[in-house]
Amino acid sequence: MGKKKDQQRLAVLASQRALRDDRRALIILVAGVDGCGRHAVINALTHGLDPRGVRVNAWPPEAAPGRHHLPLWRYWNALPDRGQVGLFLDGWYAAAIDDALRGDAPTLEHLSALEAQLTADGAVLLKLWIDLPAPTARKRIRSRIKAEAREPTPGEQAVLAAQASADDALAALRDASGGWVHLNGAKPGKAADQALEALVDAVTVAQDWAPPKVAMPRKRGSASPLTALDPDARLKKKDYKAELPELQAEIARRIWAAHARRQPVVWLFEGWDAAGKGGVIRRLTERLDARLFQVEPIAAPSDAARAHPWLWRFWQRLPRDGQLTVFDRSWYGRVLVERVEGFATEAEWRRAYAEINDFESQLVAHGTVLVKFWLEITPEAQLKRFEARAETPHKQHKLTDEDWRNRDRWDAYQATIDDMLRHTHTVGAPWTLLAANCKRHARVTALQAVIDALPPA
Amino acid sequence: MGKKKDQQRLAVLASQRALRDDRRALIILVAGVDGCGRHAVINALTHGLDPRGVRVNAWPPEAAPGRHHLPLWRYWNALPDRGQVGLFLDGWYAAAIDDALRGDAPTLEHLSALEAQLTADGAVLLKLWIDLPAPTARKRIRSRIKAEAREPTPGEQAVLAAQASADDALAALRDASGGWVHLNGAKPGKAADQALEALVDAVTVAQDWAPPKVAMPRKRGSASPLTALDPDARLKKKDYKAELPELQAEIARRIWAAHARRQPVVWLFEGWDAAGKGGVIRRLTERLDARLFQVEPIAAPSDAARAHPWLWRFWQRLPRDGQLTVFDRSWYGRVLVERVEGFATEAEWRRAYAEINDFESQLVAHGTVLVKFWLEITPEAQLKRFEARAETPHKQHKLTDEDWRNRDRWDAYQATIDDMLRHTHTVGAPWTLLAANCKRHARVTALQAVIDALPPA
Repeated sequence: MGKKKDQQRLAVLASQRALRDDRRALIILVAGVDGCGRHAVINALTHGLDPRGVRVNAWPPEAAPGRHHLPLWRYWNALPDRGQVGLFLDGWYAAAIDDALRGDAPTLEHLSALEAQLTADGAVLLKLWIDLPAPTARKRIRSRIKAEAREPTPGEQAVLAAQASADDALAALRDASGGWVHLNGAKPGKAADQALEALVDAVTVAQDWAPPKVAMPRKRGSASPLTALDPDARLKKKDYKAELPELQAEIARRIWAAHARRQPVVWLFEGWDAAGKGGVIRRLTERLDARLFQVEPIAAPSDAARAHPWLWRFWQRLPRDGQLTVFDRSWYGRVLVERVEGFATEAEWRRAYAEINDFESQLVAHGTVLVKFWLEITPEAQLKRFEARAETPHKQHKLTDEDWRNRDRWDAYQATIDDMLRHTHTVGAPWTLLAANCKRHARVTALQAVIDALPPA
Repeated sequence: MGKKKDQQRLAVLASQRALRDDRRALIILVAGVDGCGRHAVINALTHGLDPRGVRVNAWPPEAAPGRHHLPLWRYWNALPDRGQVGLFLDGWYAAAIDDALRGDAPTLEHLSALEAQLTADGAVLLKLWIDLPAPTARKRIRSRIKAEAREPTPGEQAVLAAQASADDALAALRDASGGWVHLNGAKPGKAADQALEALVDAVTVAQDWAPPKVAMPRKRGSASPLTALDPDARLKKKDYKAELPELQAEIARRIWAAHARRQPVVWLFEGWDAAGKGGVIRRLTERLDARLFQVEPIAAPSDAARAHPWLWRFWQRLPRDGQLTVFDRSWYGRVLVERVEGFATEAEWRRAYAEINDFESQLVAHGTVLVKFWLEITPEAQLKRFEARAETPHKQHKLTDEDWRNRDRWDAYQATIDDMLRHTHTVGAPWTLLAANCKRHARVTALQAVIDALPPA
């Protein structure tokens, strides 16, 4: 017995080392109802692993997911770096388990999309479910809260008050979500042993992993949505000067109102180099209270971002409820620059369309006001602006060799932009196209679009 | 005028570039009462700077500092990386300004220690204070909340309700904290211009910066506190087995009680290699609910940690109120391994004693239960354990060449340990020394010490 345990320890450590060497994350969910022994299994796993690079993610009982952010926000933010290990108590099933105990139909939407992204990214996902009938769990909970001289937690209360059909509802939830390894909750030592065994098995199986192939999504529509846009639409200086202050005041009113309602707001800007994104963003925000918004300029991903699934850095930057984030470039870089320059593989940028649509549908379902801008200029207008930048000392830092290189690949970019607009112009998260050859026109149109999207104060 | 503005823009961009090249952070505080024009100054600064690597840190009006964490926690967590720029609305003076407006004496403790750490780390600290008499601020606030169709924020209410003596109290606060550049709040455009000018000046002045020299703190006491300890104190297996379960149950009760009181708890472990830290930590935590604690193994700092003042990574890991963090090694590495191995300069580790004492006094003032353990073993006991690790396959990963090297430098470490214990054994945060040649003795003593430090359930 002692020898068998020692061998298991060695196998667990070897598994962890193998994933570290391969720079693959290990994500372990330990789920089940309160009282089933999740804490003992988590402690057995952390004890079996080398503690370096291992993190347990378990939120205090009173902190429900989705209180200040999207429901999945805290899980995304807690994802382990490649090569490291993240243990999650209940993981992203916490809310679904609560629902099942209360007799409500659990919401599994977005969870399988999340898991698909993790595994496509090379993570090894180990889902452990500790089986224990509700009556037994209730008995354990009663004796534990007595021993620990405390009130039951909300999760424990849910088990104590669970419907007679709770066990069936939980089984249905497990079946619907899939991929679970069952642990025997009736025997705590046994469950821990099974968990360690499952860890070694999962890593062994994962050694044959290869990135999934992905087909290009079917085209929607035939013509580019941009063909309907006249990039030369103009606005007179007099009209601009007259309209701007009132539009800015109205935005300030509506952003304060969104804050009071705890509604998050996201404005994102994509467009050709020198299309005037910065100028639009400045007009949108210059009358706003600095405590209500954050501008996020998106450049190449940092090392930390590269150690996570690609959407991670955007999840991190999402506004808290009642706040505004302005993305100066955004997650659409994945299907624009990363596609054209080959920074993402074909499989990666192809699956990105669906990942983006799922991400944005979560934003919208949470109540986020999402406005996506594409700033369209003609190559001729761009050339003029590049030349002006080159001649103006305090603007020279805005013009790089890369801008000239991108300009040489106008046609390649044009095709990716068309694909992007076609595949991500969804009912819930449509694009707003801005004719931007005239900066005044683009700015006033953007301000008006933002007002239209925000409920009045 | 236009030309002068362009020259100023160039100078601001050049300043930013110089700091980026030198890998020095620029930290700008924009402070003053509500209505004085802080948002316009911040917007002017962000507009003048290249937006890459610039972040505005301003918390929503309803989020008071210190609600779930130490008062300075959120500022530490928001510090910019070296080479980047962080703007802070009111910065760490937000609470002091509120106090002054209410007529209370503002608390400036710890603020100058924070600023000293930032500048010693090479950061350029620019403190901007916008002067505006309270009556004028009140007028502006009334017209703004009317234009924006909203209720006044808590900060605005404070100005509207401020004592007649508020202006004097604010002036006293400014004088007491020092280092402020005054901006003229009566003329908004003027204030923005002065802010940009002050930025360029501050960077120019900072070019002559050199790391401060630091004297070794005066010795406290003459003998090492360790001389009073018998490292060979033992506990019989029978007694250990009898005592352990009840001690663990009592810790579980008290940790739940601390959670209910929203009291944070920190246990930190330092000690010789193979002194048994991991074993003690496991016994302390194995009966605890995974949602209530986090174990933080501290290794060499990451790149992100190196881009910040050295205490940053420990601030990041502090528990939220009501949670427990166990540090397996800690901030004391600064005055142990970093000192002996030369990873910190003499000036750096010398000033670390005072920095640590200031840090811990903040923990204690916030109500944190802090227990600091030193595990003491003899060189003979260590050798035996190294040999046992080398012979046990599933323990081999715990023994590295570095451990053998450290062992060769026993005397050098001994001297640094003595210094550490003498300079950081404070009334508010004393060390608990554990005789650890006998693991059972060390474990039971640690469990009992933790219980003694935690109020009963």
